[in-house]
Amino acid sequence: MKVIIRKGIKSDMPSALRLIHELAVFENEPDAVELRLEDLENDGFGASPLFECYVAELENTIVGLALFYPRYSTWKGPTIHLEDLIVQEDKRQFKIGGQLYRKVIEHAYKLGVKRIEWNVLDWNTPAIDFYKNSGANVMNEWCNVQMDQKAMKTFLDN
Amino acid sequence: MKVIIRKGIKSDMPSALRLIHELAVFENEPDAVELRLEDLENDGFGASPLFECYVAELENTIVGLALFYPRYSTWKGPTIHLEDLIVQEDKRQFKIGGQLYRKVIEHAYKLGVKRIEWNVLDWNTPAIDFYKNSGANVMNEWCNVQMDQKAMKTFLDN
Repeated sequence: MKVIIRKGIKSDMPSALRLIHELAVFENEPDAVELRLEDLENDGFGASPLFECYVAELENTIVGLALFYPRYSTWKGPTIHLEDLIVQEDKRQFKIGGQLYRKVIEHAYKLGVKRIEWNVLDWNTPAIDFYKNSGANVMNEWCNVQMDQKAMKTFLDN
Repeated sequence: MKVIIRKGIKSDMPSALRLIHELAVFENEPDAVELRLEDLENDGFGASPLFECYVAELENTIVGLALFYPRYSTWKGPTIHLEDLIVQEDKRQFKIGGQLYRKVIEHAYKLGVKRIEWNVLDWNTPAIDFYKNSGANVMNEWCNVQMDQKAMKTFLDN
């Protein structure tokens, strides 16, 4: 079956949100997605887009998403952060993830950014193996830290 | 001694670069900083700045830096990424880091972003304790992954 990899557009966002939900379930955080369709549409397709994406289309259905945005390294300069790389679970046999991944790498390389960075859960062995085999550097020594709005308010009130 | 925390400007960048080098040495990667002064000046203070920063000034000398930029979560929406929080080693007794940290949190809270996120090395116990005590969530289960330009080219050539 023919897979089409193309730039994501506003009308793809309902499918994108479906895939984002699917990933949250896979990552054992089914209730973590607070983002609504209108957020994705406004944030990605307004005057100053906060992200860009590629989608994978199979028989007129969106079955994959790679969503990314610029970051900055004070060691290297401009980078690209790959926030999500998702393929619909029952379509993983078509190597769609690899095609989306290549598209993002092509894009970043053409842009001339110094690196692409992303995160992977330490128990997601198939993904880690895939990334390592592709030449990426998977690092265990960095912890991710997050402070949400409620914690910000508590901190600032003290 | 009176510490002034203020928005970083272009003429602060020589001091910022000195602190960035100091952090790289602390993180056991003394040769990792490829960024030059003109990169920092152009990237942070051009038509579309790639980062913002606060600096800490003590007796007319820059002794601390908090550098950040916007990111995007497909679960929560717009976030702020704190790329670097650095205090000159011999000035750590003045709690300058805490004041810079508070300034970033205030800024993020006023902006209305859903969270602030950053990274910390897993052996940097004082920093981890500080972040935990402030209400942040330090997560061990995520790996950071990076692909540099050379690895991108090798991948794309295959």
